Amino acid sequence: MVRSGNIFANVPTCLDEEEIAILAQFPGARVERIVSTGQASLPGFWYDQDRTEWVILLAGSAGLLIEGEDAPRILAPGGYLEIPPNVRHRVEWTEADRPTIWLAVHAR
Amino acid sequence: MVRSGNIFANVPTCLDEEEIAILAQFPGARVERIVSTGQASLPGFWYDQDRTEWVILLAGSAGLLIEGEDAPRILAPGGYLEIPPNVRHRVEWTEADRPTIWLAVHAR
Repeated sequence: MVRSGNIFANVPTCLDEEEIAILAQFPGARVERIVSTGQASLPGFWYDQDRTEWVILLAGSAGLLIEGEDAPRILAPGGYLEIPPNVRHRVEWTEADRPTIWLAVHAR
Repeated sequence: MVRSGNIFANVPTCLDEEEIAILAQFPGARVERIVSTGQASLPGFWYDQDRTEWVILLAGSAGLLIEGEDAPRILAPGGYLEIPPNVRHRVEWTEADRPTIWLAVHAR
């Protein structure tokens, strides 16, 4: 009835692609864990979402570029961003040596 | 335009009451940081919410009792729970020696 888990459990250390797992879905939002092991967005690719995304980095580190900004924002554990609809962004890099764990809340 | 912060920044170490800060609000969800420094729910008090709450503990530790369960669920960093509407619950304890930091996502 009350679902539970630990976001730091069963973290893969080597992936071909980012791993996305849905932790919760309810009216209004979807909560995901995203694990990256060195992945970045492909050259020229931008995320362009029609809903707000709120994302927090919980382990590792990453550089997130917002379109129009001069340099990626460096995220360390605890760092969060609220990305409004249609603000284009891309992951410039994630750490290669250890998993980077993100928690994303997507408005629905 | 893109709001950002770090959930581990400016954490109070001693509070009379839990501190609740809204980190983000968008259609469908509200994201809060809750800091506890030894607080627990008052004797006999139960949270009883009409919307789903998804909560993850990010620092410290806590015991969360779900009505009808024999013992509190012990939350360590990374531990999360999805509390459906009207599932009564209470915080039996939070750590006294260091801040306990929760991230809560409330469906709206």
